Amino acid sequence: MDKNLDNLILKGEEIFNLECDDLHIIQDKKGYMFTTDAVILSNMIKASSKETVVDLGTGSGVIPLLVSAKTKAKKIYGIEIQKRLYDMAKRSVRYNNLEDKIEILNLDIRAAHKHLGKETIDVVVSNPPYMQVKKHELTNYIRKNIEEKIKQNAYLDPNKLDELFNENEKLTETINCKTEMLITLDEIVNEASKLLKYGGKFYCIVKSERLTDLMVSMRNYLLEPKIILPIQPSENKAIDTVIVQAKKNGKSGVKILKPLVITKGDGTYTKQVHSMYYSNYDKENKIT
Amino acid sequence: MDKNLDNLILKGEEIFNLECDDLHIIQDKKGYMFTTDAVILSNMIKASSKETVVDLGTGSGVIPLLVSAKTKAKKIYGIEIQKRLYDMAKRSVRYNNLEDKIEILNLDIRAAHKHLGKETIDVVVSNPPYMQVKKHELTNYIRKNIEEKIKQNAYLDPNKLDELFNENEKLTETINCKTEMLITLDEIVNEASKLLKYGGKFYCIVKSERLTDLMVSMRNYLLEPKIILPIQPSENKAIDTVIVQAKKNGKSGVKILKPLVITKGDGTYTKQVHSMYYSNYDKENKIT
Repeated sequence: MDKNLDNLILKGEEIFNLECDDLHIIQDKKGYMFTTDAVILSNMIKASSKETVVDLGTGSGVIPLLVSAKTKAKKIYGIEIQKRLYDMAKRSVRYNNLEDKIEILNLDIRAAHKHLGKETIDVVVSNPPYMQVKKHELTNYIRKNIEEKIKQNAYLDPNKLDELFNENEKLTETINCKTEMLITLDEIVNEASKLLKYGGKFYCIVKSERLTDLMVSMRNYLLEPKIILPIQPSENKAIDTVIVQAKKNGKSGVKILKPLVITKGDGTYTKQVHSMYYSNYDKENKIT
Repeated sequence: MDKNLDNLILKGEEIFNLECDDLHIIQDKKGYMFTTDAVILSNMIKASSKETVVDLGTGSGVIPLLVSAKTKAKKIYGIEIQKRLYDMAKRSVRYNNLEDKIEILNLDIRAAHKHLGKETIDVVVSNPPYMQVKKHELTNYIRKNIEEKIKQNAYLDPNKLDELFNENEKLTETINCKTEMLITLDEIVNEASKLLKYGGKFYCIVKSERLTDLMVSMRNYLLEPKIILPIQPSENKAIDTVIVQAKKNGKSGVKILKPLVITKGDGTYTKQVHSMYYSNYDKENKIT
């Protein structure tokens, strides 16, 4: 790595080796960090050399980075509304010299089709906030506030996110990445459908408790579930996470794969997950 | 078993030992027979001594028989439109001296709530026909014919099913039990919802390819999926069947269990499935 790239890393940040095609990612030492979910999801994506991929809610940009290594995709967009994460993701792209291939956009996800064009994208991917905003909580109040703004202006302005909150409240990246405060699962599925071409694919990872919500939204927006990958934390535990791959305008009929088990009895990664993390990737060797 | 009960069995039929609480079932030697699906589904049902269970599309009545052994249910109804299967199921109930507990009704499933009352049932169960009727096939023509009749008369008359078919066509039990010719999955879910009390449970087993259809229908009719049991034919194969337990008026949020594996490498049943088939059942020991 070029020494003068070191100044791309700000105070409180660290550079993390993705151990995949010599990719590195800039992360906050204490804040939001990418998870195994992002690694497994990236591993499932298929995209040819003619195809464009969009990651909705890209956070620190881990999915665009991994998808650039694990597929032949022509172009990958990451959409992130939160300025600091957007900036961090942009610097990671520069650090890896992937500016020709990956573009990070500082946008409300709901506005992505306005910038990229309706029905222009081949593959959409998302690791959305997974927790529903519960009633009577601070987040619920803020969510209502946001819904008002959306009604008035159509989309949220990344530069004015702070205005959504009261003086004594704070926009925290962790809350925004984990709860549906800024955007709901249903809104993300709707946007994926707007972006995708006829026959395009949408890959989405959610906690299993959200499976009904995800599948119902998908069908509502003409994204027909085609493949489900159930994920178990270990052999004897229940399935806690699922990846659903849907096809725009697809026929009904879904295939459920053999579950992917994350860890062995001793707590270390299973062979399959280890190979997703720690090796240079064979682009032809996909789960499905 | 009482010797004079032998005349309950007609020519071409056999008596099959369910090896569970000394239950026996009358089946056609060549026609429609019950499957592992019915055994696993029955095993998942929970019903207390105050609760009533309805099996929609009971066929030869295997589910009511097994549920009578595996739960404490007060009363179990089996609904079957096909006269010969209805008659066979009724004779099986008599053979097992379960007439006080199990009642088989010869009805169009869609009419069940007319006979049993709306929102009166605690538990509904169904192993519905799993194949969609394809376009340009004979079954599709007959299905349209049936839809016309349903529009005119509200429900099908079990005594006039033959009239639905042209002279050179035949109503075969196997086709009716396997395809959506007489009733669709969506119509069965709708009827389950009509029958169930607030908070009542619906258990349904389908081939995994129908999971989206099932979950979307469930939510449409206020039956919220709460538990999914994925079923694998063997350890290394994809999931091919699922049981979904839904709750009438339940909150969103579904739990996905560790998959149930049917057979070991040598083709014999796994310990878990073997215990569902061949032992007198511990009513407290449920999968969930």
